[in-house]
Amino acid sequence: MSRIVIIGYESAGLTAASTARAIDRQAEIIVIERRPYVLYHPCGIPFAIGGEIPDIKTLIENTKPPNIDLRIGTEAKSIDTNSKTVEVTELKSGKTEKIPYDSLIIATGSYAFKPPIKGIDLKGVHVVRTVEDGEAIIEATKKAKRAVVVGAGAIGVETSVALRRRGLDVLLVELMPNVLPTMLDQDMAEIVTQRLHKEGVRVLCNQRLSEIRGDKNVRSVVVGETEYPAELVVMSVGVKPEAKLAKDAGIELGPTGGIKVDRYLRTSAPQVYAAGDCVETLNLITENPTLSQVATTAIRMGKVAGKNAAGRKATFNGTFNTVVTSVHELIIASTGPTTSAAKKAGIDVVSARIRMPNKPPYYPGAEPIYAKLLVEAGEQKIVGGQVISTEGVAERVNLLTLAIQNGMRVDEFANIEYCYMPAVCDAIEPLTVAAEAVLRRL
Amino acid sequence: MSRIVIIGYESAGLTAASTARAIDRQAEIIVIERRPYVLYHPCGIPFAIGGEIPDIKTLIENTKPPNIDLRIGTEAKSIDTNSKTVEVTELKSGKTEKIPYDSLIIATGSYAFKPPIKGIDLKGVHVVRTVEDGEAIIEATKKAKRAVVVGAGAIGVETSVALRRRGLDVLLVELMPNVLPTMLDQDMAEIVTQRLHKEGVRVLCNQRLSEIRGDKNVRSVVVGETEYPAELVVMSVGVKPEAKLAKDAGIELGPTGGIKVDRYLRTSAPQVYAAGDCVETLNLITENPTLSQVATTAIRMGKVAGKNAAGRKATFNGTFNTVVTSVHELIIASTGPTTSAAKKAGIDVVSARIRMPNKPPYYPGAEPIYAKLLVEAGEQKIVGGQVISTEGVAERVNLLTLAIQNGMRVDEFANIEYCYMPAVCDAIEPLTVAAEAVLRRL
Repeated sequence: MSRIVIIGYESAGLTAASTARAIDRQAEIIVIERRPYVLYHPCGIPFAIGGEIPDIKTLIENTKPPNIDLRIGTEAKSIDTNSKTVEVTELKSGKTEKIPYDSLIIATGSYAFKPPIKGIDLKGVHVVRTVEDGEAIIEATKKAKRAVVVGAGAIGVETSVALRRRGLDVLLVELMPNVLPTMLDQDMAEIVTQRLHKEGVRVLCNQRLSEIRGDKNVRSVVVGETEYPAELVVMSVGVKPEAKLAKDAGIELGPTGGIKVDRYLRTSAPQVYAAGDCVETLNLITENPTLSQVATTAIRMGKVAGKNAAGRKATFNGTFNTVVTSVHELIIASTGPTTSAAKKAGIDVVSARIRMPNKPPYYPGAEPIYAKLLVEAGEQKIVGGQVISTEGVAERVNLLTLAIQNGMRVDEFANIEYCYMPAVCDAIEPLTVAAEAVLRRL
Repeated sequence: MSRIVIIGYESAGLTAASTARAIDRQAEIIVIERRPYVLYHPCGIPFAIGGEIPDIKTLIENTKPPNIDLRIGTEAKSIDTNSKTVEVTELKSGKTEKIPYDSLIIATGSYAFKPPIKGIDLKGVHVVRTVEDGEAIIEATKKAKRAVVVGAGAIGVETSVALRRRGLDVLLVELMPNVLPTMLDQDMAEIVTQRLHKEGVRVLCNQRLSEIRGDKNVRSVVVGETEYPAELVVMSVGVKPEAKLAKDAGIELGPTGGIKVDRYLRTSAPQVYAAGDCVETLNLITENPTLSQVATTAIRMGKVAGKNAAGRKATFNGTFNTVVTSVHELIIASTGPTTSAAKKAGIDVVSARIRMPNKPPYYPGAEPIYAKLLVEAGEQKIVGGQVISTEGVAERVNLLTLAIQNGMRVDEFANIEYCYMPAVCDAIEPLTVAAEAVLRRL
């Protein structure tokens, strides 16, 4: 009987465990998880802060998975890749144990990065990562009147909206020229910024937070030359791979700081796999090393690592960076690099943006849909897309992702088959209209 | 200067005209249309009967397209493929004219079929095709209390729901074993039937309408051995290609009764193209001749015919039969053949059906999503899919269609990249869950 040990039980670890279990009914599967509870759903936290999810505790699950030896409240302290053992400590009792493995999957995830600026450790400065973080922010909104959110990625945008829903004055600060800078070009981001303004969120782009001021509690932040009073500061400047355990074990990291893996998700150590936010993978368009750090990637990697640890041969090739977020009813999704990211990677991009109603003109309740398509000028293959509307947004970006994965040219994509009914869409698919618009520019 | 003549101005004719216009700024483009108004939207009619579209007149458009010689109220009487002329009559004046063409596009559409049964011409028996049909049905609902809808395809289902919304007792009769028989397998159709029952629509499958009874007005219908009283009967047993004009001109028809074309949409006559409901095309899965007869196919064919008539070389290869319909908030879509249609075509199909919530368990307002995937057993390529839920249904079926078009195997599809946010979907894409379920059966 073989033994598979998995470190970490979020999307990647969970999927790896259940996948390995389904393949190998005999193997012993041990999962080491530091948290005192079984599972939680980090992507729900901004919506619990905003109140759409009425009770943040519902993000915690405490049902143990069947036929898996899940040890919560237990921390992996070190990995010995020679003797193939993991040293773990039960946090409550302090009891230490060395667990031998045949296969090991490192799924240690990521942590919210706090930049080393003055005042970062003041009371009232939060990140959005764990349920405890979410609870602390909800508690803080009961007294705070003014909040500053630093970093306008998906989590920063979602948290800004959530804090407005709690009645706070919200200032959202972003270092880059536009909100959602890894997802959207500036013209598309402008639509999001306008929606944020309408919601009462003030947006400051191209601005750096230089200092957080206060005595014990936060009193203000300094952005550029200006001091903004705030009782609550949320830092959402990104997450970093939790790779220290791997590094200390001599396992190779990549230039992004994530654990280096091949397409079978094998690390540099024999029989050691890695999956999820802690892993460095490949951006399939720019071909640069990248950190994906979304739950769907973690799940897809977990499947591959779980299969391979159980003796199969599955591959994970990389990511197109397919992401969705929202501002109230407005859904925003994208895949592939932005125009500026493509340029930086040496890809010559031709693009077009369209705006049209998402239902036929005669059908009540139509909302605008915005779609932008990015096409590589040479072979005319689609390399990215950005969609904003109130429905059918994530699904359309998934469609684009599948087209990109299949190497479709924009002229082929302009003629795809699709279905139509006035209650759900117009007779002309907006993505094909965007494709035709690009074709006119090629 | 060349002249392109187009007969018919619905989805195909409209798209052909505007496509040709965009390519060739010089050509004379003449469109012959029998109707006394410019354009109408047939797919909206059931929703106007149901009241979702408050005024059925909004389905009519009277803005003439720019730079196109659109002659409404004018009927094409005959085509002479030798002299390359179309004889047309202005219906009001009776004035007749022979119009020479360099290229001709036949886009005559289809008509609602009325089976030759006893009583079919009684007052109170309607079809759902034109705005006038819709107006007559709305008028009839003011007096009628009981309606029978014959044929449970998309139009029959939509019209049944619409008549219930108008307060009538509705009986829906279908010859085949289940509703939406060309779209759904019986297990998926059962979900629709239950929703119809909940709505108060009685459904009778496996039953043939044998007679409509009445004196001048409809009084009842006979289905099997039973007589059902009804003041309103809607026949929705299918549409037939309007191909008489082509046939009379010696243009070849196919076994389905549609105009035979090659992949450039060329008919058997030189420089004569055909597009839309009047055309026979290829079912790309079964490889049998088929009639597609949905607006999206007409638009896609119109684009190809318009390009080719203007001197380009575009192709239309056939259809996967991608269709969407609805019962109130429930959206139903499918692509590819049903299991029984696949069997009939000699395709050995393995399938699996899944049901899961369309949002994470902790997010309020989740609705079930049902997805069924059909995979050809040999090469394990996806050949069809059926999805039912309250949102993201049409878009998911479009995704499946793209996967089928790209010849994807089910194991490849199980690992596609997609995006996720709790407000719009769960972290695991239902279609990949369905794909995994099929894989377990292969």
